[in-house]
Amino acid sequence: MIKRFVIIVAGGSGERMKSPLPKQFIEIKGKPVLMHTIETFYGFDNSISIVVVLPADQIGYWKDVCIKGDFSIPHDLVAGGETRFGSVKNGLDVIPDNVLVAIHDGVRPFVNSETIGRCFCEAEKYGNAIPCISVNDTVRRVDNYNSFIIDRLNLRLIQTPQVFLSGLIKESFNQPYLPDFTDDASVFEKSGGNVHLVEGNRENIKITDPFDLFLAEFLINRTIV
Amino acid sequence: MIKRFVIIVAGGSGERMKSPLPKQFIEIKGKPVLMHTIETFYGFDNSISIVVVLPADQIGYWKDVCIKGDFSIPHDLVAGGETRFGSVKNGLDVIPDNVLVAIHDGVRPFVNSETIGRCFCEAEKYGNAIPCISVNDTVRRVDNYNSFIIDRLNLRLIQTPQVFLSGLIKESFNQPYLPDFTDDASVFEKSGGNVHLVEGNRENIKITDPFDLFLAEFLINRTIV
Repeated sequence: MIKRFVIIVAGGSGERMKSPLPKQFIEIKGKPVLMHTIETFYGFDNSISIVVVLPADQIGYWKDVCIKGDFSIPHDLVAGGETRFGSVKNGLDVIPDNVLVAIHDGVRPFVNSETIGRCFCEAEKYGNAIPCISVNDTVRRVDNYNSFIIDRLNLRLIQTPQVFLSGLIKESFNQPYLPDFTDDASVFEKSGGNVHLVEGNRENIKITDPFDLFLAEFLINRTIV
Repeated sequence: MIKRFVIIVAGGSGERMKSPLPKQFIEIKGKPVLMHTIETFYGFDNSISIVVVLPADQIGYWKDVCIKGDFSIPHDLVAGGETRFGSVKNGLDVIPDNVLVAIHDGVRPFVNSETIGRCFCEAEKYGNAIPCISVNDTVRRVDNYNSFIIDRLNLRLIQTPQVFLSGLIKESFNQPYLPDFTDDASVFEKSGGNVHLVEGNRENIKITDPFDLFLAEFLINRTIV
């Protein structure tokens, strides 16, 4: 088996959450979201190498929180960049070539082991694996004053962890940043990669606004003991 | 103010829910989903006229459930058709012209009063109002073996109640059924109507699969007392 790494990117502010605390540090069940996310990957495979990317000015705070919370899961810390792209790139700089690397949002603690496992296995075969779920609602595209229906059967909501052979994704991150890089698959694709979609899990929500946090408080009691 | 009606369409099976009981009858907090939905509209405006569309062979069961549950919110019952389109059409047959009619999924009990009010007010001005929410995730469109990123900023997930001036929507439902009528706005649009989108609410989920039911059990304790 190829050696496995995960880069957990936690560069968010509390803006959309309407909180002074960056969203990765908001507590659910008495513990910061980011700790839950780290525990999820460690629970999946305790030999995985974990790299956490945080804004430089949050690293001291995080270290304190880990000491106070007696949090002992080993992880390396890397200072983030100005954009998510920059942060991931900084994380990739410490990843060796010829390994598998998962890139995961720090505020998605509810990815399950099946999804993580599926992403690593398929990425080993196909060079990458991007988890997604189908859409249950009718979807419309807004265009100035009009809107048009889009066939939902062909749509997928993209999640993380997005897993890649490290050499391929490191190469992709050598290209210049573009504003339409909303995830790592889009960076990979722009450099010529062929995105390989795999099934994600419904409860793998990105905790972004107060409604997500409200759901998270519920999910935590059911999925993480 | 124009007189207000709501058609609550409950034609679902328990298929995706993996339940022998049709999803509108599954209980949350000791009461069928459909009762919660009716209560939501009655709570919004107790002078609203409520029409519930059910498959013909479920009407007897529903009447029994209402008697046993001492459920006294007045509502008319109409037998559904073979498709959702047919069911809505049957419901519209009992709606007068020159009123406002909301068409709502029976399994969306968590629409809030703000959304319902907004839809009725805007439909009075624009002839229709379709609630929607924005998309937080990266979205891709799958096309055979490839997939392409779609700009999520222009996408909207469509909800109900979809509110119309009754004369307009009744006219739209005179056209022949097409399989791509996934909601009432698409029927309205096909007959030349210009869809008017308004803001919905995040917790207005359609209870479709076990994960939705799991969320519903949580939401019910927070939003409906």
